[in-house]
Amino acid sequence: MSGPRYTIGVDFGTESARAMLVDVADGRELGVEVYSYSNGVIDERLPDPDSDVILGPDWALQDPNDYIETFKRTIPGVLAKTGVDPDGVIGIGIDFTACTMLPTKADGTPLCTLDQYRRRPHAWVKLWKHHAAQPEADDINRVAAEMGETWPARYGGKISSEWFFPKSLQILREDPEVYRAADRLIEAADWVIWQLTDVETRNNCTAGYKAIWSAEDGFPTNQFFAALDPAFAGVVDEKMSRSIARLGDVAGSLSERAAGWTGLRAGIAVAVANVDAHVSAPAATVTECGTLVAIMGTSTCHIVLSEGAPVIPGACGVVRDGVIPGLFGYEAGQSAVGDIFGWFVERCVPPVYHQRASDRGVSVHEILEEDAAALRPGQSGLLALDWWNGNRSVLVDADLSGLLIGMTLATTAPEIYRALIEATAFGTRVIIDAFEKGGVRIDRVVACGGLPERNRLLMQIYADVTGRTFRIAASAQTPALGSAMFAAVAAGPESGGYASIEEASRQMAHLRNEAYVPIEAHREAYDVLYGEYVRLHDLFGRGGDPAVKTLKRLRLQGVAEAAATSARLPSDQVGLT
Amino acid sequence: MSGPRYTIGVDFGTESARAMLVDVADGRELGVEVYSYSNGVIDERLPDPDSDVILGPDWALQDPNDYIETFKRTIPGVLAKTGVDPDGVIGIGIDFTACTMLPTKADGTPLCTLDQYRRRPHAWVKLWKHHAAQPEADDINRVAAEMGETWPARYGGKISSEWFFPKSLQILREDPEVYRAADRLIEAADWVIWQLTDVETRNNCTAGYKAIWSAEDGFPTNQFFAALDPAFAGVVDEKMSRSIARLGDVAGSLSERAAGWTGLRAGIAVAVANVDAHVSAPAATVTECGTLVAIMGTSTCHIVLSEGAPVIPGACGVVRDGVIPGLFGYEAGQSAVGDIFGWFVERCVPPVYHQRASDRGVSVHEILEEDAAALRPGQSGLLALDWWNGNRSVLVDADLSGLLIGMTLATTAPEIYRALIEATAFGTRVIIDAFEKGGVRIDRVVACGGLPERNRLLMQIYADVTGRTFRIAASAQTPALGSAMFAAVAAGPESGGYASIEEASRQMAHLRNEAYVPIEAHREAYDVLYGEYVRLHDLFGRGGDPAVKTLKRLRLQGVAEAAATSARLPSDQVGLT
Repeated sequence: MSGPRYTIGVDFGTESARAMLVDVADGRELGVEVYSYSNGVIDERLPDPDSDVILGPDWALQDPNDYIETFKRTIPGVLAKTGVDPDGVIGIGIDFTACTMLPTKADGTPLCTLDQYRRRPHAWVKLWKHHAAQPEADDINRVAAEMGETWPARYGGKISSEWFFPKSLQILREDPEVYRAADRLIEAADWVIWQLTDVETRNNCTAGYKAIWSAEDGFPTNQFFAALDPAFAGVVDEKMSRSIARLGDVAGSLSERAAGWTGLRAGIAVAVANVDAHVSAPAATVTECGTLVAIMGTSTCHIVLSEGAPVIPGACGVVRDGVIPGLFGYEAGQSAVGDIFGWFVERCVPPVYHQRASDRGVSVHEILEEDAAALRPGQSGLLALDWWNGNRSVLVDADLSGLLIGMTLATTAPEIYRALIEATAFGTRVIIDAFEKGGVRIDRVVACGGLPERNRLLMQIYADVTGRTFRIAASAQTPALGSAMFAAVAAGPESGGYASIEEASRQMAHLRNEAYVPIEAHREAYDVLYGEYVRLHDLFGRGGDPAVKTLKRLRLQGVAEAAATSARLPSDQVGLT
Repeated sequence: MSGPRYTIGVDFGTESARAMLVDVADGRELGVEVYSYSNGVIDERLPDPDSDVILGPDWALQDPNDYIETFKRTIPGVLAKTGVDPDGVIGIGIDFTACTMLPTKADGTPLCTLDQYRRRPHAWVKLWKHHAAQPEADDINRVAAEMGETWPARYGGKISSEWFFPKSLQILREDPEVYRAADRLIEAADWVIWQLTDVETRNNCTAGYKAIWSAEDGFPTNQFFAALDPAFAGVVDEKMSRSIARLGDVAGSLSERAAGWTGLRAGIAVAVANVDAHVSAPAATVTECGTLVAIMGTSTCHIVLSEGAPVIPGACGVVRDGVIPGLFGYEAGQSAVGDIFGWFVERCVPPVYHQRASDRGVSVHEILEEDAAALRPGQSGLLALDWWNGNRSVLVDADLSGLLIGMTLATTAPEIYRALIEATAFGTRVIIDAFEKGGVRIDRVVACGGLPERNRLLMQIYADVTGRTFRIAASAQTPALGSAMFAAVAAGPESGGYASIEEASRQMAHLRNEAYVPIEAHREAYDVLYGEYVRLHDLFGRGGDPAVKTLKRLRLQGVAEAAATSARLPSDQVGLT
């Protein structure tokens, strides 16, 4: 057929998923349809009718039916909304949170959908933010160190409790019957592709960043897994796959069943699954070395491409072809960014600013930004360490906590707000410095995610602090756009798509007009402040001063004591003489 | 006459003064009358009709007529209010802020009341918080170091811009004509006694703590003053007095003129003038060694007595007979205490707590205290350095600023509030430790001032942190009570008063019933936290880490730049590509 060609990108998030219909010619976003998962994040009890099954602390599950429901609702929805002829849709791609994984039967049936396992928490999808496998992560890191494994260097020295093998090992240890019943352990990203195509694939992005796989060395050895537990020795061969599909490839074609769910033509191309942060890079126009992609929201994820793979201390991972085929993709991260500003606005801003915001019908953030923008760099006299949720890159230490220094009786909320923005900018500069010191060049930054488009002051401060020009991706939904772009590559030129993600990016990805250029007059003060930041960062973050660790220990001890005995008010404790 | 005997204590504060009528037998407070100074604190322009005379930054003046007006209004007022027969009043005493000083003619006429000088700012009273003599204080400290003077050791190493000689030298330098016209330079405390008695006296408390005088060594030498300015060489002999009256002595008897102002009998005893903090010690029952008096309000002043006078690093001063005759009186201070809590409530507490306070008709402080009281020591994971207004004792550094460490995304306002209380308690413990290390024993604490009676949690935390039992003075107005007690001593037993301040204190001063006893279970966590506090205190306060100094420099630079150029919003600075 002739006429315009479209692809669909489906972005699976934490609370909801969205399908976006995109014009292949220029990336124009014709429409988006969102589905909020009916069972959301399952973190207290299993869904009805099994809600008497209580989950432990740090658990976070999802219901795989919500993913299927996403396809059934959002794709017909967006087709109807836009009036696009389904015959014009040439491909579909998806991205997912990661590591989000589940146990299934050999045919892909999730164990949690079977009557005999539905009341077993380990039979459900473990969401990325399921943090209950920390003991397993600790053991994996310890055994890796003992056995002299070389792969920890690729992951900043330590792997996270969020990753694939800690979650898998937790299943084995805590519910071996579910582990044995699981013919497959699979990323949800790959599982939904399996559901669309009837073909099981494993994408190299989650394998590389979350399952300790590399194109050169494959997975850790069976001996390594055996050292964790003899029953774990064969986890890869028994329940996973050593055949890893590459981003940009076709996973399969849309099955008749999935065509029935979605209203799309059976047989169209389905792309290999991708991860939300990584798929954003080409959607932010970045397919080459030299540009940092900052996906900025509650936290920030950084993606940067390189021709080589030098060890970068504190990076989250480096994977060949992990973002763009032919290049090494690095991931780094700041564990709280927007979350810190949100915390501040919710917990630390007095009524007068709320009143002003309400009077003018704007957010408290906007009021604070307005006042903060009138300050010169350094004028607040404040400096913060942005560790409200620990530090991912470059310190890889979840036990760190925040610091604010320089308060006087004249210190105001907008001053603190600006200091918190500056602190996250300094955190980004530390990461940029680590990359450049390691030999990975970063000349400019493209930001995407929710935060940049709403915060001009934040963008300018980031530019001033890092000395790099910041641009912003035109799309407010880079993950869905990126998935639609990979769908166009999967479809290929013969179907009206593209031969490569680079080409798709050139045609379909765009930047917003504005550029945030470093203001020379601000650089000097920020260089001085950054010097102070780095010294305090190293002092408190690298063991020079134990304060944050001691405080964390006292906090846990205090919380435990408070739980053990009912809190007493001091009125009980005052002796009358 | 027979019947009850009374004395009156007049407490001259910063914004107002109050007269209290007290029963000499038991210290019962029969009534208080307050006068708010008609010209308050003069810190922007001289009062009408000379309000076209603008004051510089850091200036703070008062109008001496407000002091006379105080006598005329408050004493008749409190007599009328209580119905007490003026013939029963046997004495009057006063206390004042210090150093608050003024230039007068030989007969005591303030220069600012003379037509030829009324438009000259230097002719007015310089209030204690007039901070515009910092260059003069710097010069005095520098010259003292150069000349190897021994007296700085008595004052924690440095004297303050608030003190007598910086203020006097500022007059000489900036308005030599006023300086030459001033036959006398005198503390306002002594000036009001002069007005009551027609006798000029100089009390040893302000002389000792604010004018570098000691019983052993007198004032600094004329050579020293000459080194500052040849015209300053004779300041003591020309404009002050080397005859220093001792606390507890009689300054004179009430003049006919002052009897006319007040309605009191002419001829009754008028006590030597005193200082608000120091006069509080006997009013808080403390006339002996071993007990720290903490006068806690916006800031905290500490008074402790000793038989010897070892050098205590960072104490504000040590004066023989400066508090209680026969003992050395030490003064130390924390430059912000209640001010920090006030700052926090005004600047950092979100609407939900204000709403709860308003719903229940209590203060936000009470709501925060309630939630904070439910926490265990250490449970917040927070630690602060209480330097929002610099640090007086023991670091003597006005350039320091506050620090808060340990914040997470779960940190709440009551947790921060408790951490701030704890920080000021740690600050007190540092001072106690400095005294004890120097050989001045501190076994227990008596608190007075506005803060203790309102804050049970604060008192308990102070007891837990310092390991000392805290008691609270029964009087909410210890300065006025103390002045009334010294009035009873001035009157003497022959008039129905007392032979000594110790005896007056035994009879007239009382403690509240409750005692805050350290809770053993809290000591361990607080010892650990205090260890962290001391390490950070020394690191940031003694030059180990320059962060706070660098931040202060950047702040001043930023403020100056902002003043020099109108603040630009980043919207001006975004280049469109």
